[in-house]
Amino acid sequence: MAEEVILLDFWPSPFGMRVRIALAEKGIAYDYKEEDLKNKSPLLLAMNPVHKKIPVLIHNGKPVCESLIAVQYIDEVWHDKSPLLPSNPYERAQARFWADYVDKKIYDLGRKIWSTKGEEQEAAKKEFVESLKLLEGELGDKPFFGGQAFGFVDVALVPFYSWFYAYETCGGFSIEAECPKLVAWAKRCLLRESVSKALPDPEKVHGFVLELKKKFGVE
Amino acid sequence: MAEEVILLDFWPSPFGMRVRIALAEKGIAYDYKEEDLKNKSPLLLAMNPVHKKIPVLIHNGKPVCESLIAVQYIDEVWHDKSPLLPSNPYERAQARFWADYVDKKIYDLGRKIWSTKGEEQEAAKKEFVESLKLLEGELGDKPFFGGQAFGFVDVALVPFYSWFYAYETCGGFSIEAECPKLVAWAKRCLLRESVSKALPDPEKVHGFVLELKKKFGVE
Repeated sequence: MAEEVILLDFWPSPFGMRVRIALAEKGIAYDYKEEDLKNKSPLLLAMNPVHKKIPVLIHNGKPVCESLIAVQYIDEVWHDKSPLLPSNPYERAQARFWADYVDKKIYDLGRKIWSTKGEEQEAAKKEFVESLKLLEGELGDKPFFGGQAFGFVDVALVPFYSWFYAYETCGGFSIEAECPKLVAWAKRCLLRESVSKALPDPEKVHGFVLELKKKFGVE
Repeated sequence: MAEEVILLDFWPSPFGMRVRIALAEKGIAYDYKEEDLKNKSPLLLAMNPVHKKIPVLIHNGKPVCESLIAVQYIDEVWHDKSPLLPSNPYERAQARFWADYVDKKIYDLGRKIWSTKGEEQEAAKKEFVESLKLLEGELGDKPFFGGQAFGFVDVALVPFYSWFYAYETCGGFSIEAECPKLVAWAKRCLLRESVSKALPDPEKVHGFVLELKKKFGVE
């Protein structure tokens, strides 16, 4: 059967980037549809009526929502190439734990860095750096989170690297000075075409964040 | 090898109940250790240094944290008996989606019902009932969320049934009047020994919630 794969996405979304990376790792051709989040398409509303959010992966007409669920789905359907989750159940649980940790911490803290000021911003920067240091500790001296091979936790985290410049510029701090090994890991990930093609230019993300700051009245 | 399975848990935790149900479905004997959350054990702090939360499943000395990750781990390790996740990748993605929906909505909204008053409480009740109705719609006329067999979404959601009486009493509303099919489903789940033994008495949970209300100064 010919596979029909569609991705409803929005270019600066780190969650969308995860799905782009996973599809690229598997070598899956797909139809990328950019959504206007101020005017969501009828297809998005029909395919994700619960959350009405991108990314949505549509495989042969059926939607898979929530980025980490979509990445796992992609890994399970196209299991012959570039496995993302480890085959060992314990290692798989650990990979899910750290990807979940990224979901619980990084996006919200990053958002607070650009959307708040003063003490609130300082607290967010502190907690953001602590979270990255914890991830850096988990990475240790391995090339990737899962060991020698690029995998699930790398896919979950590396999209945020394209936002680091915006966080740093808005927050007036250097992530590389705090977490040099983590930044080296991100650069290692970017050597993969699956990652470099999925991540937008950090300056373009920064421009997008400046628009958001205006929209929300954060000077 | 003799399996050593320990569960660090706290009796009213719906997240802990999930792990209890999954272990019972698989027929796994384990050592249940009740935690005092005001004075967490060195074992809990060592086994879940990141979140410092229960439940923690410890299998042959190695911890698995976060309840849905632990349930998936249990399902993968003891895969020969009572499968919880469907074998089809699409159905598995759907099961993960709805379990994630429960995580994103039910606990926090339920907490707001007993911990707030006035307009805030009314808004929480409204959104809580809407979320349950959405779940009830997904259940449809099936006996369980996954179809004929008790599975992952059932494990994720049914623990909250032991909190319904507390929500109803604190919020002055009837969940059964709003969602009769969902309550019938919960009663169907309770016919399973795995569920009935894992869920505490709703009146005991209500007593616990009254203590929490006092502690947080909610009259």
